[in-house]
Amino acid sequence: MTLKAKVHIFLKNGVLDVQGKAVEGALGGLGWTDVSNVRVGKVLEFDLKASDKSAAETEVKAMCEKLLANTVIESYRIEVA
Amino acid sequence: MTLKAKVHIFLKNGVLDVQGKAVEGALGGLGWTDVSNVRVGKVLEFDLKASDKSAAETEVKAMCEKLLANTVIESYRIEVA
Repeated sequence: MTLKAKVHIFLKNGVLDVQGKAVEGALGGLGWTDVSNVRVGKVLEFDLKASDKSAAETEVKAMCEKLLANTVIESYRIEVA
Repeated sequence: MTLKAKVHIFLKNGVLDVQGKAVEGALGGLGWTDVSNVRVGKVLEFDLKASDKSAAETEVKAMCEKLLANTVIESYRIEVA
């Protein structure tokens, strides 16, 4: 069966989010000064062939650990449907 | 009041997702050949001061149109909570 996987990858709390700071600065420059704590993350969506949902989740977790996320500074969350 | 806003930004369908293709290739090289249609998107999370939820949504929509999303090739979805 083909399943839809979604992986959310965010910098861990405490890791400086320079991209977020840049967005915050740019928004401030345009007059939106009420914005704070901007964090920028990634989402990957893909189709995956697997025997069942739990097998797919195991596969996606392995992909995150090996390639998709830098687990030193990033945390990830998996959704398989 | 301070609200949490979340903005999901994805390339529109039909726009070649080169980052997604690169991830797909890299996963294939590691043996995950059952993965297809990889799309990579961005998520921005931030705190926003606004009088109410609907005012915040209007603000965030304006931010997307002006700065956060390239509406020629990207679509966005807003969540305010």
